[in-house]
Amino acid sequence: MKKNDIGADAIILHKKLGGKIRIESAMKVMSRAELSLIYTPGVAAVSSLLAHPSTSSGQAKLARDYTIKGKMIAVVSDGSAVLGLGNIGPYGALPVMEGKCALFKTFAGVDAFPIVLDTTSPRLRSASTQERMDFIVETICAIAPAFGGINLEDIAAPHCFYIEEELKRRLDIPVMHDDQHGTAVVILAALINAARVVKKDIKKLRVVVSGAGAAGSASTSLLLKAGIKDIVVLDRKGVLDRSRTEPHKKALAAKTNPRRVHGGLREALAGADVLLGVSGPGLATAADIALMAPRSIVFAMANPTPEIMPQEAKRGGAVVVGTGRSDYPNQINNSLAFPGIFRGALETQVRQITDAMKIQAAKNLAALVKRPNAERVVPGPFDPGVSAAVAKAIQ
Amino acid sequence: MKKNDIGADAIILHKKLGGKIRIESAMKVMSRAELSLIYTPGVAAVSSLLAHPSTSSGQAKLARDYTIKGKMIAVVSDGSAVLGLGNIGPYGALPVMEGKCALFKTFAGVDAFPIVLDTTSPRLRSASTQERMDFIVETICAIAPAFGGINLEDIAAPHCFYIEEELKRRLDIPVMHDDQHGTAVVILAALINAARVVKKDIKKLRVVVSGAGAAGSASTSLLLKAGIKDIVVLDRKGVLDRSRTEPHKKALAAKTNPRRVHGGLREALAGADVLLGVSGPGLATAADIALMAPRSIVFAMANPTPEIMPQEAKRGGAVVVGTGRSDYPNQINNSLAFPGIFRGALETQVRQITDAMKIQAAKNLAALVKRPNAERVVPGPFDPGVSAAVAKAIQ
Repeated sequence: MKKNDIGADAIILHKKLGGKIRIESAMKVMSRAELSLIYTPGVAAVSSLLAHPSTSSGQAKLARDYTIKGKMIAVVSDGSAVLGLGNIGPYGALPVMEGKCALFKTFAGVDAFPIVLDTTSPRLRSASTQERMDFIVETICAIAPAFGGINLEDIAAPHCFYIEEELKRRLDIPVMHDDQHGTAVVILAALINAARVVKKDIKKLRVVVSGAGAAGSASTSLLLKAGIKDIVVLDRKGVLDRSRTEPHKKALAAKTNPRRVHGGLREALAGADVLLGVSGPGLATAADIALMAPRSIVFAMANPTPEIMPQEAKRGGAVVVGTGRSDYPNQINNSLAFPGIFRGALETQVRQITDAMKIQAAKNLAALVKRPNAERVVPGPFDPGVSAAVAKAIQ
Repeated sequence: MKKNDIGADAIILHKKLGGKIRIESAMKVMSRAELSLIYTPGVAAVSSLLAHPSTSSGQAKLARDYTIKGKMIAVVSDGSAVLGLGNIGPYGALPVMEGKCALFKTFAGVDAFPIVLDTTSPRLRSASTQERMDFIVETICAIAPAFGGINLEDIAAPHCFYIEEELKRRLDIPVMHDDQHGTAVVILAALINAARVVKKDIKKLRVVVSGAGAAGSASTSLLLKAGIKDIVVLDRKGVLDRSRTEPHKKALAAKTNPRRVHGGLREALAGADVLLGVSGPGLATAADIALMAPRSIVFAMANPTPEIMPQEAKRGGAVVVGTGRSDYPNQINNSLAFPGIFRGALETQVRQITDAMKIQAAKNLAALVKRPNAERVVPGPFDPGVSAAVAKAIQ
């Protein structure tokens, strides 16, 4: 199917479905006796058990056993950075969040519900960026009691960093911005196997990351934690160096670029082993890839149009090429990670998804591919055992 | 089953279920081709169709066709007045809201999701009542885009009045506080048939309403709109008269008590045709009921313990007695109304649930009982056609 056909077919299918998730009652209520157990008067005993005017952690623990809290993930977006479409608001975000909830169920049996936030309230019309971010944090904290975890999604950088950090600080359930950490886990998994295919030591790889947004920042951090030492990050203005002042770029610059590379993509790529594109289409040509070290690895993640098309990257000498697309080999898609991560988090009731868990999840994902080769460095989304393998890492 | 047994059994059942609703994918995703339609890249076409940085009403209309918005109701509580248990917080409220969502599905095929609000954020610790109410309004407005209607539930009076009014003003989807209006609809339905049973003209009934909270206020207003002229409302301090200063009681006093009754329950009951108890247990005795006019009607709605037990009311001379309980005849329970009201609202996409719709819903409910008698003035919750009859009124 061509891209346009897929879009047209998707529109027809969405209209036919009228929403991609449904609510079901956990028990068919067939009689007055059953009614009096799941609703009044019987439910009063359960409510009394969980009663507490505040959200005490003791009651939160009980709520996991007696309510949906033990099973339910919120997929939350403000619609400020949806796919590559930018700030398209809550209605634009909703089909993506619903899709994500459908995948939670399909791939990991996890119940998830989409929450899309309208941040255009009159009160916010003249608000500062800080007030806007705090509004999102306050809103998510307010609705958190019914949920066992929060999957943040498609929230623009740099706001996503503050929002995630604040929520982690304030809530006693795991919070994960999937554009950051889900992406990072799958990239690390792919890189573990790609390094094996090109017979290089992963810790000695020279990695170039194009993009310092949500995915670029989190992937860089996770690759560093996994032991990779030489990472050069670029944004639109070129290589991040110590002259940068925006807080999250300054922080990234401080821990990357050990060889003090200056300039743009070509300077960064000279002798590099890996190009990780998390920026947008039209980044590089075969000639750019040819500047890299022999047996190079290119992950071009922009969706639907990658930073460089696979055939072009191969023409430049890349041996392993991955994209976010399903119509090329090596689909590095976060649907490999998020369902299992939250499945594990619900099962073990961890309070945070730590870096160690994410690295283990990447290793488990990579290990599912028994004999990695240039066309297969990650499992497919429908391969059996994917979410179970990832879930095992979260404990 | 005794009450204590029901409570114990409910606790066991809730632990077994671990949450009373489940999320299902509307379509089993079985292949990469299907994945690319419900998720990336295909979903981008749907998101583009709905894209708008604000929540414009044009996009809201489209969202009803392409997302869950056309099907999904939010059941929202802050846990401030849960059943008769008082302010027990969001975890205490959650089992009730889940139960409500299960009933939405069971009785009307409507998808509903529970949202319980934590209002104990540090920012609110020293907040005024007004700030607290505005926080609840802002939070619900923020999460509204994914929903086609808002069922407010178990929010304490008088805050519930402001919160509902503000939400109705700000949102373009129907908002209904069920403790007020769902209750009022079922009470009116029951009264229509009870008046037929005792052969009195409903418009000429003298009605005493004990309780000026959510249910008492809304029921009084709806009975007035339905043409009943003589209603006396009492709260803990006695009959509401023009000396009252709290805004909602002042408003109630201004439109009730045409005969200027003074005093307490006994003064109000003298010669009355109907006692509507929406206050709490231990309100009246057989001797009090004996003060009423011949062939009196008593609806004692407090749950689980009514204002007066049915046998006691009958001893005082009441001919038709209703309660909220399933173990006595005439269960006047709002599960007869809310599923159908929101089913109708979703089907016809009305923006508000008006008084005229509520009165019609009550008439339709009443008409389902072909030959009303003292033991049967309302249909049972499992009677066929209940939600369809109610839904038909919402247009």
